[in-house]
Amino acid sequence: MSISPLFTDLYELTMAQGYLLNKHNPNVVFDMFFRRQPYNSGFAIFAGIDNLLDDLEGLRFSSDDISYLRSLGYLTDDFLDYLSGFRFTGSVLSFREGSMVFSEEPLIRIDAPLIEAQIIESLLLNIINFQTLIATKSARVLVATGFGNVLEFGMRRAQGYNGALMASRAAYIGGASGTSNTLAGKMFGIPVSGTMAHSWIMAFDSEAESFHRYAELYPDTAILLIDTFDTLEQGVENAISVGLKLKAQGKRIGVRLDSGDLSYLSKQVRSRLDAAGLDDATIAVSGDLNEQIAAQLLAEGAPIDVWGVGTQLATGHPDASVSGVYKLAARRQGERIIPTMKVSNNPAKMTNPGIKQVYRFYDKNRTPLRDVIQLHDEPCPKGPIELFHPTMHYKFTRFSSYHSAEAQLHPVMRNGQRLAPSEDIKDVRNRVITQLQRMDETFLRQLNPHEYKISLSSPLKDLKFRMIDEYNRA
Amino acid sequence: MSISPLFTDLYELTMAQGYLLNKHNPNVVFDMFFRRQPYNSGFAIFAGIDNLLDDLEGLRFSSDDISYLRSLGYLTDDFLDYLSGFRFTGSVLSFREGSMVFSEEPLIRIDAPLIEAQIIESLLLNIINFQTLIATKSARVLVATGFGNVLEFGMRRAQGYNGALMASRAAYIGGASGTSNTLAGKMFGIPVSGTMAHSWIMAFDSEAESFHRYAELYPDTAILLIDTFDTLEQGVENAISVGLKLKAQGKRIGVRLDSGDLSYLSKQVRSRLDAAGLDDATIAVSGDLNEQIAAQLLAEGAPIDVWGVGTQLATGHPDASVSGVYKLAARRQGERIIPTMKVSNNPAKMTNPGIKQVYRFYDKNRTPLRDVIQLHDEPCPKGPIELFHPTMHYKFTRFSSYHSAEAQLHPVMRNGQRLAPSEDIKDVRNRVITQLQRMDETFLRQLNPHEYKISLSSPLKDLKFRMIDEYNRA
Repeated sequence: MSISPLFTDLYELTMAQGYLLNKHNPNVVFDMFFRRQPYNSGFAIFAGIDNLLDDLEGLRFSSDDISYLRSLGYLTDDFLDYLSGFRFTGSVLSFREGSMVFSEEPLIRIDAPLIEAQIIESLLLNIINFQTLIATKSARVLVATGFGNVLEFGMRRAQGYNGALMASRAAYIGGASGTSNTLAGKMFGIPVSGTMAHSWIMAFDSEAESFHRYAELYPDTAILLIDTFDTLEQGVENAISVGLKLKAQGKRIGVRLDSGDLSYLSKQVRSRLDAAGLDDATIAVSGDLNEQIAAQLLAEGAPIDVWGVGTQLATGHPDASVSGVYKLAARRQGERIIPTMKVSNNPAKMTNPGIKQVYRFYDKNRTPLRDVIQLHDEPCPKGPIELFHPTMHYKFTRFSSYHSAEAQLHPVMRNGQRLAPSEDIKDVRNRVITQLQRMDETFLRQLNPHEYKISLSSPLKDLKFRMIDEYNRA
Repeated sequence: MSISPLFTDLYELTMAQGYLLNKHNPNVVFDMFFRRQPYNSGFAIFAGIDNLLDDLEGLRFSSDDISYLRSLGYLTDDFLDYLSGFRFTGSVLSFREGSMVFSEEPLIRIDAPLIEAQIIESLLLNIINFQTLIATKSARVLVATGFGNVLEFGMRRAQGYNGALMASRAAYIGGASGTSNTLAGKMFGIPVSGTMAHSWIMAFDSEAESFHRYAELYPDTAILLIDTFDTLEQGVENAISVGLKLKAQGKRIGVRLDSGDLSYLSKQVRSRLDAAGLDDATIAVSGDLNEQIAAQLLAEGAPIDVWGVGTQLATGHPDASVSGVYKLAARRQGERIIPTMKVSNNPAKMTNPGIKQVYRFYDKNRTPLRDVIQLHDEPCPKGPIELFHPTMHYKFTRFSSYHSAEAQLHPVMRNGQRLAPSEDIKDVRNRVITQLQRMDETFLRQLNPHEYKISLSSPLKDLKFRMIDEYNRA
């Protein structure tokens, strides 16, 4: 079931009525992009497009929706009739879900009648901004753990059900191995995991009893939480006793640390487990983790096998959102394309005019080198090419040391219909991991990463600065 | 339609199966509370309980849910049969929605069989943590604007659909006057508002034409966005021309500023409007506002009538969540109540044992003075009373200078049934505003607010420190 198209900022509807009554509904092209990398990260991970396409296909105003809009008192019968028959009939091009993306480049290109393009704006931004935020956060955590086993545990402090569900999905895409959110597991086919809380241990007469009972029930997934009373005095010893019993059955335990100094405790616990002959027992940690803490634990050599990350992963903290925007790039007039742009006193707020395509340059190992934004009808770059800075037209470079270039915006919807079914979410996740592993690690650095270059082609640069010039002379 | 009870951390289900198979399913009492005030605020606003009650009433595992759980491979037929017939049959006491609440005091008390109480944990925390965060943020913004007209515009950067919808609801409860989120308007009966984006102006040949067209269509709600080209050179003059035309029809305009220095511009625009005889025209502002910026604008005397607040209100930035927790307070054994508590090396992480009630003391003007947490069977305080610090048992005060005391936890659900229908959301919002206006303003201060005191009654203090002592001697 799709969300209602009432999930839109009201001004989209008041403007839409104005366009309809003024008979001003040309086909237009909008770009979705963001201006600032979340977390000042060297990269972002694009996510949410699959959910957006499903929603766009199913977008219908119900009769209830129409009655509600009528009750507002300022929408006409003509416009409400139009909304009753509303469908999204446009075309969509998009980066593949799970692509590494960068500020300023169009991530999604919408080609639709103006009214439709406006009504979907809030929905599109809501989905893509949030999932891209979380997928990026998840990839940062993954890198910080040295591509470790990361589990997302954040639902109890996520922002709403759907905030939790979409966070689980996007965290998985970004590289997490699974989630504690059972419904997300069912909905998206993500592995789910979870064993015991402190309340399990406290429900029995002793910690030892609680561990043995658990292991009898779940001999294959006994991750014992060992910090309820005293991790080193008691928890690890009780776990070892269970571990030796399971070992005799050819099975192994894991332990989880949820408090205290995780670096110190994990090392102590590791050596106690090893000394007991349980060197295959795994150590999981949790408790307010994020990429900075993970990196520090890794640097200190903490022997951690599983990283449970909750609130900060599911909410993208400390960023609340990706600052994605949706801007008009062109208007169609019959066969003619009229490029449009926002000219601002602030060069960073100017947009790139016209219908565009993004090409990514690779070396022979398919490591991405840089991206170029071109006009859509320019050919794929081949051989030496001149590339221009997006805001300083006098800055350019001649670039030839690449092996191949590939278009990044792919057609995914035509006339309101998806062109392909959903990808397997595991493939999307693998795409992320492969890209991260291919990327030069200076781009993956947490603080002050190497800046990935985004340039304009010569024709796009010419168009942009000609339009600015015309505007300034007007 | 209620959310599926699969919206739970998987460990709740693995533990639940363990309790069922071990025939350990006593009635228990859980408290929901938070340990740290969001934003280090002097108060928080409790929100979400109405949605929680609806969800608890409707909580059912579908046959699809059961099939999914069966596919995990480690849940038994007995347990899956139990889940097929699962209902929440417990009782709930709660603060009234929109109450001012403080750290450490129980906000919700759940009395239910252990398995049910655990399965609902993640859902309860997800709803209450998020809505309480946003209602608190909204109240802070409201106070910062001097109880001004605040509109919530955050859906495009909110965390998921439901994050956006619940944010609109909670922001309204916390004191916002309305939202741009049309679906939230329909679902919750919240006023919706919205007029034009920059794209409206750019869709016409001139700003002047776009304003006139808009005012013809919406003569009663013409809020003109005047910063597209040049606010003072052009925007305000075009708005005045429309304003004079509407004035002749007995109507008035508003203008909106979405960029630039809002203090400087609002003063300039105000004097230009006044000089033109449009002293009833309103000024709205928007663009990355929060409570700090609002307070500064107010302090500088910026003549602002409407405050549009987006991302930071809908996501609760810079906090991502309220750190609400859900802890076992007692176990029932027939008629006996066995209090339980978490003893921790960190006193701040200790819980308060037993079944409890919260009383609020008021002066004769119904200004809240302080709260006390008591055991549920203690009488309502009357006359002089000894109150104890929650963690330092030797700190106490004799308190008598109050006019009345009132229980704060009210029965809202019994045997899984709501005891009353939803309150009108406008009444909930009015409750918030009334409380804020009655509160001594030192508690409402943004930075370093006066700390509202939460104490323990003498019997609760005795129970708590006796249990700690017993634990330490064990």
